[in-house]
Amino acid sequence: MQELIKKYIVPYFGGSNAEVPLEALDDAAVIDGIVLKSDVYAVKPIFFPGGDIGRLAVAGTVNDIAVMGARPLALACGLVLEEGFLIADLERILASMRECCRRVGVHIITGDIKVMEKGAIDEIVISVSGIGKRYELLDTNFSVVERIHPVTSRWLVDTNIYPGDIILVSGSIGDHGISLISHREGYDFKSSLTSDTQPLNGLVEKVLQVGGIVKIKDPTRGGLANTLNEWSEKSQVGITVSEESIPIHENVRAACEMLGIDPLEVGNEGKLVVAVTPPQAEEALQALRSTEEGREAAIIGEATDRSGYVVMETTVGGKRIIPPPAGDPIPRIC
Amino acid sequence: MQELIKKYIVPYFGGSNAEVPLEALDDAAVIDGIVLKSDVYAVKPIFFPGGDIGRLAVAGTVNDIAVMGARPLALACGLVLEEGFLIADLERILASMRECCRRVGVHIITGDIKVMEKGAIDEIVISVSGIGKRYELLDTNFSVVERIHPVTSRWLVDTNIYPGDIILVSGSIGDHGISLISHREGYDFKSSLTSDTQPLNGLVEKVLQVGGIVKIKDPTRGGLANTLNEWSEKSQVGITVSEESIPIHENVRAACEMLGIDPLEVGNEGKLVVAVTPPQAEEALQALRSTEEGREAAIIGEATDRSGYVVMETTVGGKRIIPPPAGDPIPRIC
Repeated sequence: MQELIKKYIVPYFGGSNAEVPLEALDDAAVIDGIVLKSDVYAVKPIFFPGGDIGRLAVAGTVNDIAVMGARPLALACGLVLEEGFLIADLERILASMRECCRRVGVHIITGDIKVMEKGAIDEIVISVSGIGKRYELLDTNFSVVERIHPVTSRWLVDTNIYPGDIILVSGSIGDHGISLISHREGYDFKSSLTSDTQPLNGLVEKVLQVGGIVKIKDPTRGGLANTLNEWSEKSQVGITVSEESIPIHENVRAACEMLGIDPLEVGNEGKLVVAVTPPQAEEALQALRSTEEGREAAIIGEATDRSGYVVMETTVGGKRIIPPPAGDPIPRIC
Repeated sequence: MQELIKKYIVPYFGGSNAEVPLEALDDAAVIDGIVLKSDVYAVKPIFFPGGDIGRLAVAGTVNDIAVMGARPLALACGLVLEEGFLIADLERILASMRECCRRVGVHIITGDIKVMEKGAIDEIVISVSGIGKRYELLDTNFSVVERIHPVTSRWLVDTNIYPGDIILVSGSIGDHGISLISHREGYDFKSSLTSDTQPLNGLVEKVLQVGGIVKIKDPTRGGLANTLNEWSEKSQVGITVSEESIPIHENVRAACEMLGIDPLEVGNEGKLVVAVTPPQAEEALQALRSTEEGREAAIIGEATDRSGYVVMETTVGGKRIIPPPAGDPIPRIC
């Protein structure tokens, strides 16, 4: 997917004078002080433990706006329905989107519906776009960062990370993807696997108050492995994480082992990865842990050098390189 | 479709404090001075005489932003592809989108791609969202309007029209829908039917320079009949148009007769309907006609009273009420 975007989308559409342009391939774009994001959701099944396609679509777009350092201002929604799609299911999805919007504190203010004939689309596809406005506390935050090292942008961008910066996650990884595939394929892991789909703008705002936040990302497609590799490549830093410090629920770990999937490559929809300057790391951890969404937060590693590799110190005392995920281990999870 | 939106979307998502909110059901929404629009395009066939799904998607969203009185600032694009979709076709569509963006003077600055398995989507669906910033000359424009009558909003909204306002179209109607259905169904009308798909932000800017513009709309789904009925209902005015003054290409008229379709209900993708205060009507007409896109512009009628009906004076000297289109005479044209 990343290849498809780099090879086709960027050459055709790059070259704007946006503050954070398309070719940055960051979580969202920024132009004239406005953060803009658009995502399409084609998840299967559309209802799953812990969420549904509507909640996923709202939370997904909101999170990508928030992690750039912006308060979500408004959303736009495009629905594509298969003819004969049950009105009861549509209402369930709309109610779920509304509920998620309320939690975020944002409205869907415009949209579009298209109905395609039976067989021309698998149930429903939802596009959610959104705009956001810079958090005022972002300036204070970057003043703290700049006491430690320079930044390439006073937005939260992938190129901001320096050797020494500390890496945190806001909670356990792999829940969304594993919950989805288990539900879809009918596996029974004798345990309740639940997606973590949730909006994280509150959590972003909370941790920004600490100051010293360099970059935040929600590790969706490609999971934590992808996020760390993107940071490593774009900021030209090596990143070392400790396997035992990465929170993974036991049922997710067991499912991954059975399915032969690396939990680090599994998509999440309700977690943040945070890079913070060292003096603020402990306070950032406590800020995350003080919230419901971030109660399982952990420091998992740090940016080390200019090597450009992501390395994991394993529980058995070895080291292994974590490569960028080659493909999506689980299709249609978002 | 309008019913679906009124019945399901508005009750779930209405209630924002946007300047032009969802429940206005106008061409786009406005919040904090930013115009926001999102549309999904599921047109079939994806290539047609005069355009393709890419050009349609960019022009469609751009036009909805422009008709509110805003300069398109940036676009976001979501692509949903069927597995196995030809890269050559994708590149052709992307090139067409880029060409259209260049003409508009805007960039696609962010986006998303999803690939669905074979059979889960009919070829390709494109979502284009966009933001726009108020044309500075909108204030001057409304100063001119307000010498004639009050307005409900100093954006170009459907509720602004008063009895006496003059109605223009920027060119012939029905071209897009009829071209598409002819091409799709393999009809041969012994004439080249071509879609009018094109961006109209230049034309909007041109006519705004005249001053006195009350509202502009691009008559897409439901065609001219739908646009006039929306204005009539929302502004609580009667509208009378003269049949012989409405420009319709001869081949479109012939095709409509054969297919039993009212050309007034056929969707357009490169035309504007403009409501203007009477003293500025002639100058607005000349401004439209001075452009390539508007060379066939015509004054077609006026807002008459508070009756709330759209009436057409027919070529044979009678009068008939034009009701809101009951359904879409041609599915999947946008």
